[in-house]
Amino acid sequence: MSAPLFKRLERAPSGDSVSLREVLDALQFTEEGLIPAIAQRHDTAEVVMVGYMNRATLEETLDTGRVCYYSRSRKRVWRKGEESGNVQLLRELRIDCDGDALLLIVEQTGPACHTGQRRCFYLKVDGDRVTVTDTPERSPEQMYRPAE
Amino acid sequence: MSAPLFKRLERAPSGDSVSLREVLDALQFTEEGLIPAIAQRHDTAEVVMVGYMNRATLEETLDTGRVCYYSRSRKRVWRKGEESGNVQLLRELRIDCDGDALLLIVEQTGPACHTGQRRCFYLKVDGDRVTVTDTPERSPEQMYRPAE
Repeated sequence: MSAPLFKRLERAPSGDSVSLREVLDALQFTEEGLIPAIAQRHDTAEVVMVGYMNRATLEETLDTGRVCYYSRSRKRVWRKGEESGNVQLLRELRIDCDGDALLLIVEQTGPACHTGQRRCFYLKVDGDRVTVTDTPERSPEQMYRPAE
Repeated sequence: MSAPLFKRLERAPSGDSVSLREVLDALQFTEEGLIPAIAQRHDTAEVVMVGYMNRATLEETLDTGRVCYYSRSRKRVWRKGEESGNVQLLRELRIDCDGDALLLIVEQTGPACHTGQRRCFYLKVDGDRVTVTDTPERSPEQMYRPAE
C-alpha cells in the first residue's frame, strides 16, 4: 500500500514539490528498516549495483553527497569506497511512485563491484546458460589491503 | 553471504558459462521467496521501475520473453501490462555478483508506471524539497478500464 503522500503525488503536476522531511517520513522501509537503492552511472547510464539504505544512511548520503549504504551482510553502515577507494558521489536522488525504491545517479570512481568488475551485473542469461560477460578492471588484491 | 557458485564466478574469465539451472538454484531469494528486478529500457537506458520476482515468475519471464513479476501488494503473479497493455518484452536478463538482484533490459510498451508516468522514478530530491519532474503520458483512466 502506498502512503497517502505518494498517492497524492501521483496526481500532482510536474514542478510541484513537498518537503523532503515529509517524504522521508512516508518512505516504505522494510521490517529491517531498509530500502533498495539502485546506483546508475551519470555518464554511461549503466546500472552498476543495488545496495540498501536505512534512514540514517540515506540522510547521510543526502547531507554529504557521498553514497553511504547499510551493509546487510556486515550489519553496519557502509560508506561505499571506504576500503576500496571506489566511492560514489551523488548527482541526483530519485524516489519511485510508491516510495519503496531509490534511484541514485552517481559519479563512480573505479569499479563499482567488490570483485573489481565495473558493475555488479556481469552475469548474463544466454538461453540455458549464464555467461560471465565482463573482465575485472582491477583485482580484489589491488583494491583491498590485507588487515594490519 | 554469497553462494559458492557466485564466489566461484567472481574469478571466472569473461566468456565462461554455467548452466542456468545451477544459477537459478543458487539465487538468493528473500524469506518471502522474492528477488528485486530492475527494469531498464533498452533504447534510452532509463531505469523505469523496480519489481519483484519469485522463481516461477522469473522462469516464466525467461520462457516467454514477456516480463512477469510477483505483486507484493496483490500477492499474486503480475504479468506486466495484463490490465494496462503496457507490457515489457525482455531483451536481456542480468544477475548481480552475489545473486540477489536482477537487471532486466526491456522493450517497454507505453508508460512503465501505473500512474501513466513514463517511469516510476518521477520524484527528485532538490535540497530540502522533493519535486515531481515528469508529466504522465497517459491517465490511469485511459489505461485501466473499470471492472465490469
